Amino acid sequence: MSHFIAVDAGGTQLRAACYPNIGSDPLISRRIPTQSLESRPVERLLSLIKSVWPEQGDVDAIGLAVPGAVNPYEGCVYVSPNIPGWVDLPLRKIVQEEFKTPTAVGNDANLAALGEWRFGAGQGHHNLIYFTISTGIGGGVIENDRLLLGQRGLAAEVGHIMVDPDGPICGCGQRGHLEAIASGPAIARWVTAQIAAGTESCLKGDPSITAREVAEAARKGDALSCAAFERAGFWFGRTLADFLHLFNPSVVVLGGGVTRSGELIFKPIRASVEKHTMSHMYYQDLVITRAQLGDDAGLVGALTLAHSLV
Amino acid sequence: MSHFIAVDAGGTQLRAACYPNIGSDPLISRRIPTQSLESRPVERLLSLIKSVWPEQGDVDAIGLAVPGAVNPYEGCVYVSPNIPGWVDLPLRKIVQEEFKTPTAVGNDANLAALGEWRFGAGQGHHNLIYFTISTGIGGGVIENDRLLLGQRGLAAEVGHIMVDPDGPICGCGQRGHLEAIASGPAIARWVTAQIAAGTESCLKGDPSITAREVAEAARKGDALSCAAFERAGFWFGRTLADFLHLFNPSVVVLGGGVTRSGELIFKPIRASVEKHTMSHMYYQDLVITRAQLGDDAGLVGALTLAHSLV
Repeated sequence: MSHFIAVDAGGTQLRAACYPNIGSDPLISRRIPTQSLESRPVERLLSLIKSVWPEQGDVDAIGLAVPGAVNPYEGCVYVSPNIPGWVDLPLRKIVQEEFKTPTAVGNDANLAALGEWRFGAGQGHHNLIYFTISTGIGGGVIENDRLLLGQRGLAAEVGHIMVDPDGPICGCGQRGHLEAIASGPAIARWVTAQIAAGTESCLKGDPSITAREVAEAARKGDALSCAAFERAGFWFGRTLADFLHLFNPSVVVLGGGVTRSGELIFKPIRASVEKHTMSHMYYQDLVITRAQLGDDAGLVGALTLAHSLV
Repeated sequence: MSHFIAVDAGGTQLRAACYPNIGSDPLISRRIPTQSLESRPVERLLSLIKSVWPEQGDVDAIGLAVPGAVNPYEGCVYVSPNIPGWVDLPLRKIVQEEFKTPTAVGNDANLAALGEWRFGAGQGHHNLIYFTISTGIGGGVIENDRLLLGQRGLAAEVGHIMVDPDGPICGCGQRGHLEAIASGPAIARWVTAQIAAGTESCLKGDPSITAREVAEAARKGDALSCAAFERAGFWFGRTLADFLHLFNPSVVVLGGGVTRSGELIFKPIRASVEKHTMSHMYYQDLVITRAQLGDDAGLVGALTLAHSLV
């Protein structure tokens, strides 16, 4: 009997799972804190893969979803923000040689797009854009049934698009990127700044405030918190209009923690994207929907990638 | 002997040419003013195609490059700005039935990208972005050796990307698009506005001024005219950084009238794109170069499209 192993190196947890086949539930899955990769990350990864190896049967292929700059053609991690030592790491070669099994490596947000397209909210579509709106904003693009990768696999950095030239500095160092305006921390920072500037709110102006707390306050009718989601949705929708002009997708899938706020963020996004598209042709049959795979998107994407090897 | 016929419906001229094969010079070519399409445009187009039909041998395929919103899958022109009557026009069907010859239709800027990739400045590359910076800003994207089209073929509207939320209104009705800031008329309008506001220049503040005249004045050392290209190049480069993050190309090909200004526009573009990319990985091996096919890009793209049918 054949199996596939999928690995997702998330910001919080490193997860591995063994699937008897594509589209089925995992036979075994294990997770360790990503933080534990601070020492001997490669050994820990290999040991996690071993821990889900099936007792009987073979493993046909291994797929790995890694955050950061990853070259999927060469199976190389250029740099990964969560795992300090992973710079120019030939990860595919290491895993492949250890397990004598075909292995592929991809960017986690790109693979989440692949997962949502194949098994989640994008099933049946040929042209999809996926965003995860969370601590950062990442994503992926499926164009004509293929993952958009670019020359070195660095494409679809959908959060690092300049939205407001006078906006806040992004984590990447550039100014006014979408991630710096509409991610969870960006929403929370805006609320804190407004409170510091004297705006009333049921929230205290605590810098440790989260977008989830802002969403809870908005649901209770806090005007500032509602305005924070209106603002983030407005800018997100305005940028999404640009993406429609560039990619002309039939479906936009939105995942990540911020989308758990539901209509608080979806309503202003829809209004803004409709307002900012240059022709109804880009919008009229477009589906804008929530991701279905939740935290499993990267893992399912890595599984899809592994399956593509056989 | 087999032939291909290519047609380019440009803003000024409707051109048709008959090629004995792909990669060769045309056997016959004809052009008529696009303005003459104001009455009976389909009949005039068919008659132009007939006028380049070879006396001997067969025509294997016909390719048509049309400005505006074109669905290449269905061969339908949704709307074309230069030809008022062409709304929801099944152009492929009309041409194919008239000449009993396989026919394909595409957006002219997309096909110019295809032409530059196959026979111009993008040869040998697999991931290309092409811009034509002219009266408007259009373009096309080649990703992994394929033209990016999207669900209805409306993708790669590279000029209709929001650059400055407080910027001027674009021809499409939206505010602050790249086309409204860095196209030829946008450069000229900025100069006129600066002169009206009291800035000194050797140019008179005539509203009929062109980007070409601004370039000539800049070459003579006119500070305002130099600043106009610095500004356009800055914004273009800043937007190009976004495109690198999205598409990760290995080559960027710039064509259209504004690029005839040479280093006046290329220098600030290069400086700005380097400054605004979030990692050197997007920029280090990138080629930014001038288009090679000039006004023939659309025609050569239509030829490439025709050839893809056989």
